[in-house]
Amino acid sequence: VTAAKECLGIVGVGLIGGSIGLAARRNGRYGPILGVDRDPAVLERAKARGCIDDADELPAVAQHADVIVICTPVDQIASHVLTAARYCRPTALLTDTGSTKVAVVEAVEKELADERWFVGGHPLAGSEKRGPENARADLFDGRVTVLTPTPNTERRASDRAEYFWTLLGSRVGFMSPDEHDRTVALTSHLPHVVAAALAGMLDPAQNGFAASGFRDTTRLAAGDPELWTAILMQNRRPVLRQLDKFQFRLKEFLAALDQSDAATIRRLLTEAKGVRDDLGS
Amino acid sequence: VTAAKECLGIVGVGLIGGSIGLAARRNGRYGPILGVDRDPAVLERAKARGCIDDADELPAVAQHADVIVICTPVDQIASHVLTAARYCRPTALLTDTGSTKVAVVEAVEKELADERWFVGGHPLAGSEKRGPENARADLFDGRVTVLTPTPNTERRASDRAEYFWTLLGSRVGFMSPDEHDRTVALTSHLPHVVAAALAGMLDPAQNGFAASGFRDTTRLAAGDPELWTAILMQNRRPVLRQLDKFQFRLKEFLAALDQSDAATIRRLLTEAKGVRDDLGS
Repeated sequence: VTAAKECLGIVGVGLIGGSIGLAARRNGRYGPILGVDRDPAVLERAKARGCIDDADELPAVAQHADVIVICTPVDQIASHVLTAARYCRPTALLTDTGSTKVAVVEAVEKELADERWFVGGHPLAGSEKRGPENARADLFDGRVTVLTPTPNTERRASDRAEYFWTLLGSRVGFMSPDEHDRTVALTSHLPHVVAAALAGMLDPAQNGFAASGFRDTTRLAAGDPELWTAILMQNRRPVLRQLDKFQFRLKEFLAALDQSDAATIRRLLTEAKGVRDDLGS
Repeated sequence: VTAAKECLGIVGVGLIGGSIGLAARRNGRYGPILGVDRDPAVLERAKARGCIDDADELPAVAQHADVIVICTPVDQIASHVLTAARYCRPTALLTDTGSTKVAVVEAVEKELADERWFVGGHPLAGSEKRGPENARADLFDGRVTVLTPTPNTERRASDRAEYFWTLLGSRVGFMSPDEHDRTVALTSHLPHVVAAALAGMLDPAQNGFAASGFRDTTRLAAGDPELWTAILMQNRRPVLRQLDKFQFRLKEFLAALDQSDAATIRRLLTEAKGVRDDLGS
C-alpha cells in the first residue's frame, strides 16, 4: 500500500530548512517540496542542492502544501505562520523550527483562527554553519525534536507533527513552550553566550596558541549574530537566570583558586567530568 | 648521509608521551625509544601500540638516552627532570611537555647543575582522551610547541629542543615561562574552567536536550580532574586574572539582556564571531 505523497512547503531554506527538504526527500513520503525564501540566491542554491523541487511566494506555496514548516529567524516566525494560515487548506499542518517557543506560540495563538492546525517545534540539531549548501539529509537522525502543543492545540496537529519529525529521522519529545524555553536557556542559549564571551577575549596575535580546547569551547561564537540576538532577546528572562547560576558556579572556582583550595577544585572538576562523561561525545 | 639514531627516553607514556613515541618512530631519526611509567599496564599498552620499544626504570633510561622528555603530570615534572639529570650523560637533552612553565622551570633551575641541558616545553596539542591507546603519530603536526628557555638555558639545549619538535611535525615558538603561563591561562586553562562550570549545571535528565553546541562547549570538562587540579594550582594567579576578565565580559551580556539592549548584544556577538572566524575551525 503506497500512500499518496504530501506536498511539503518550507519557508526559509537555510541550513535547517534545507536539511528538512533533504530528509523529507530521503524519506520519500513528500513531494513536491516547495521552498520560500526572501533571498532568491538561497532558493537557487537550495534547488541546485536538491533541498527543494521548486520555489514560489508564501501564499502560493501555502495553497498547495499539506505540511508547512517555518524555518525563518525567530522574530519572523509568527508572522510567517499567520500569513501561511490565511492561504492554506484547513487540514494543512503548520509548524516551525524556532529556538524559542513562548514568544512564537503566544504570538501565533493570539491571532490564529481555531480551525488552523499549528504546533510549535524545535529540532535540537544544527551547526554554526549556515545556508542550504551545508544542509544534510541526516541532520535530524537520532536527535530530539521538541514539540510544544498547548491546551489550544488540536490533537491531530500534534500527532501529525510527531509523525512528520519521526519520518525525518528525529526522536520527538513534548514540552510546554515555557518548559522548552527554560531547558534550552541552559542547554543551548547559555553555551552560546559563554562561547561568545570567551572568544571575544582572544587577541588575534594569540591565535597560534589556541588549540583544540579553545576552539571547541568557542565554536558556537561563529554563529550568526542576527539570528542569535533575536533568540536571546526572545528568551531573555530564562537566559538571565541561567547566566546568574553560571556566574555562581564560576565564583566557586574563583574562590577555591584564590584560597589555593585544591580539594574543592578537584571536587568541582570531578563533578563536571561525571556529567560530561554521562553525556557522551 | 645517514646520521646515527638517537636514543629517546619518554617519562610518562600517556596520550602525549605515547604520541611523542609514535611521531619519533614515524620520523625515523630516533631509536631505541624507551618508556618509563609508574603504571606497568600503561607501559604494556604503549609497547603494544608501538609507542615505545622497551620499558625500564628512569635511572636506566636516563643513562642511555640522548633526548629525555618528561610527560608526567605538572606537579611531578621537576622531580623527574632532576632524577634524570643525576643519571644522564652531560650532552643529553632534558625537556618536558607540562602545561605550566613557571613553576616547573623555577623548580628545575633551582636545583639543576649548570652543565645539564634543560629547556621547558609545551606542545599545544592534546585531547580530553587519555592513555597510549589514544596516542597518534600526527598529534603535533602543524601545532605549536612553545619552548621556554631562560637566561640560564644553554643555547645548544634550546636549539636541540627546537630540532626535536620540528622532527615530530610541530611548529616551534619561544616565550619566557611567564609569558607562556599568562598566554595559556587564557587559551587553555580558562576554557577548561568555563567548560567545567557549564557542564556541572546540566541535570542528567536534560541530556537529550544537550545538542552539539552544549557538547562542544563542555568537551574539555571530560579531562582528568587530577591533572587539571595540578595545572590550575600551578598557574592560579594568571588563571584568576583571566577569570576576572571573563566575568566582566559575561556582565556585559547580562546587563545588555537585562536592559533589552539588542544593539549591544548584536555588537558583542559580532565582535566574538570576528575573532572566532579568524581563528578557523
